[in-house]
Amino acid sequence: MTSVDGSRLKKTLLEMSQFGYNEQDHGVYRWGFTEADMAVRKWLLEQTKAEGFESFMDGAGNVFFGLGDFHQAPAILMGSHADTVPAGGIFDGALGVVAGWEVLRVLQQSDTPLSTPVWVVATAEEEGRFGGMMGSQAIAGALNPDWLMGAHDADDVYLKDAMAEQGLNVMDALDAAWPPERLKAFFELHIEQGPVLFNKDIQIGAVEGISGVFKWIVHLKGKADHAGTAPMNMRSDAFMGLADFAHEIERIIAENGTDKTRITVGKVDLKPGSPHTVPGEAIFTIVGRDMSNEVMKELADACRKALSAIARKHRLMFEYEEVSWLAPKDCSAALTDLIEEKAAARKLSCLRMPSGAGHDTQFMAEITDAGLIFIPSVNGVSHAPDEWSHWHDVEAGTNVLLDCVRAVATETIGDSLGHKRGSA
Amino acid sequence: MTSVDGSRLKKTLLEMSQFGYNEQDHGVYRWGFTEADMAVRKWLLEQTKAEGFESFMDGAGNVFFGLGDFHQAPAILMGSHADTVPAGGIFDGALGVVAGWEVLRVLQQSDTPLSTPVWVVATAEEEGRFGGMMGSQAIAGALNPDWLMGAHDADDVYLKDAMAEQGLNVMDALDAAWPPERLKAFFELHIEQGPVLFNKDIQIGAVEGISGVFKWIVHLKGKADHAGTAPMNMRSDAFMGLADFAHEIERIIAENGTDKTRITVGKVDLKPGSPHTVPGEAIFTIVGRDMSNEVMKELADACRKALSAIARKHRLMFEYEEVSWLAPKDCSAALTDLIEEKAAARKLSCLRMPSGAGHDTQFMAEITDAGLIFIPSVNGVSHAPDEWSHWHDVEAGTNVLLDCVRAVATETIGDSLGHKRGSA
Repeated sequence: MTSVDGSRLKKTLLEMSQFGYNEQDHGVYRWGFTEADMAVRKWLLEQTKAEGFESFMDGAGNVFFGLGDFHQAPAILMGSHADTVPAGGIFDGALGVVAGWEVLRVLQQSDTPLSTPVWVVATAEEEGRFGGMMGSQAIAGALNPDWLMGAHDADDVYLKDAMAEQGLNVMDALDAAWPPERLKAFFELHIEQGPVLFNKDIQIGAVEGISGVFKWIVHLKGKADHAGTAPMNMRSDAFMGLADFAHEIERIIAENGTDKTRITVGKVDLKPGSPHTVPGEAIFTIVGRDMSNEVMKELADACRKALSAIARKHRLMFEYEEVSWLAPKDCSAALTDLIEEKAAARKLSCLRMPSGAGHDTQFMAEITDAGLIFIPSVNGVSHAPDEWSHWHDVEAGTNVLLDCVRAVATETIGDSLGHKRGSA
Repeated sequence: MTSVDGSRLKKTLLEMSQFGYNEQDHGVYRWGFTEADMAVRKWLLEQTKAEGFESFMDGAGNVFFGLGDFHQAPAILMGSHADTVPAGGIFDGALGVVAGWEVLRVLQQSDTPLSTPVWVVATAEEEGRFGGMMGSQAIAGALNPDWLMGAHDADDVYLKDAMAEQGLNVMDALDAAWPPERLKAFFELHIEQGPVLFNKDIQIGAVEGISGVFKWIVHLKGKADHAGTAPMNMRSDAFMGLADFAHEIERIIAENGTDKTRITVGKVDLKPGSPHTVPGEAIFTIVGRDMSNEVMKELADACRKALSAIARKHRLMFEYEEVSWLAPKDCSAALTDLIEEKAAARKLSCLRMPSGAGHDTQFMAEITDAGLIFIPSVNGVSHAPDEWSHWHDVEAGTNVLLDCVRAVATETIGDSLGHKRGSA
């Protein structure tokens, strides 16, 4: 069984990690469309060309490199994003790019002739500096001119200006869409960014889908009173309303959720926010997730009912705004099976699991069969300089990626994949 | 029965409210040692002198005016503070000053000769701009040079500089202490600043004491995780620890407290404070109050136990800092009885009650018998432009003050009051 070259893989990943690396905090800074982000793309274009692959950058800043002519036959695309959050780790995104690259090298060096084009994409701006997953949205044809012109980051830097500064025209992102029939399958290898595989000591995650997510901003309004003069039973304490709700979360999940449900209160603002004043207002976020859109609806209903009842009890006004509702996105069941099968063939432990975080896969799944492979994150840490995955897990995950790509390229499973125009 | 002149009282209070009045937000701005605060003191000195009273300002900025020589016989002192919080109301503090003034007028105009000196004090800096109740602390001899030199406000303006700018020398505040034997009693009329009298439709509060208060800053530290990737049962969610504690407050009071207990969580800081991240840290305040120091200790113990258990359950680190612990301060039981009796004589409804807020009375009670009279605050509002008390309640409270002062000045109750050197 041909395998990837673990030390070559490691060397390439460490080279890539130098782009945007900060000596002080040991974090990687490749925020979308910054100098470091563009530098790594230039490096990818040049290095892969030097290794004999074709390479190009599209209008959205996505870098492609690969083997075979995808205009002639539907391609297998691998990849992930090349940008990072500020002070991010070296694996998030980069792993999927470098793993795809390593798979290409193995295919290039093997004697097996490939009838199927195999390419890698290093997507642009996946981390959401400008509020989306711009690179994979561009490929999936999910962008529009209005959004492109209006998108800006938290410092009010506009996407169009950030791209112009790098010599790119924001409107060219609209030319980056791939006709679905040009693709046979998409594979992404990514670190889990959560504790499940690490805690359970499992080597491979076969991701069944990306969980849906809703975000509410909730406003409970009572009455700010002097904490000394207002008796407990005469208060309209907005914080106590929030605390009562938080206490109900466990019950709400038990009654309406699944083992894949998460409900999080991550941000809380009390007004006036003084130790000696009963909080008159509590403004907080609720982020709910599940793999089923129906379950998400039931969770949202249960949250609404609980908050209404609590507001009545504490004499509070209750309002909420549903800031976003993203439905869950399933991966290709055939590819999830394939990942599980290929892991087993290499005697790797494997868990079918959801992804709680968003990934390029969710947009690629709009236009083709998409599969997502996880490897363990040490202590579940990500988006931080101490993000880590063991090299043996990196190698194992890349071998599974290689086996899956080879299967789709050469076995009959490939025949049933990809977009069929006119099919349901 | 001689009574105060309600319309004269109202006119004087409205005149006083013009000092620091803001046309935009209708709030009063007489923060300690500002121009407006000093202007009102100058006005008090001049107006009361013009009405035939003696008047002077001491080294702490307290303004005194009255009848009779307190060097010859122990005096009855009335009063409250002349400063306000920024954007405060027109009654908080000013009521006690103007009511005392009105009582003086009635005594001046009556034919009864007074063997007891009767004076009014408009104390300085009660609202705590510099972190204390500086005026009444000065009178009670509770200041020291170290504190005076180091005291500063939230904008790092030092007390000594603020006083120097008004032509005052901070060290002169040490000369403002009164020998206890110079006082027979102290009375303060104040608005309740809470909802109890208003909600119960009671006209007079006979205050039994100022509740004690402790303030904690609590730190719960868990682990910041991605809200999507971290399963509910693998989290160390610091906010859920806080919410669990808040849920226990009702039980803690039921088991360890009294009907006068208040426990408030007024300020909460979550870190990182992002909607999509499980809160890794919660930093919040607990302010506990009761009329009994023993009860306060039991409440504090119960809070500590609850937080320790909750921290274990949620895998959190629990630390707290006791920022302050002020023991409860009893008013003079004889004067509380007197207030109740005088209210009854005027057919006013009266409630014996604690004060949840701090008042000059608590320091005056250190050196003499002190009595505190409350009148209702409409909707319990204070420290805001919409602070209000009905004029008929203002008049009723001032009549009770008059009757109490007259009783101490002329009846045998006066013989038992005041500081007796060498007594227990």
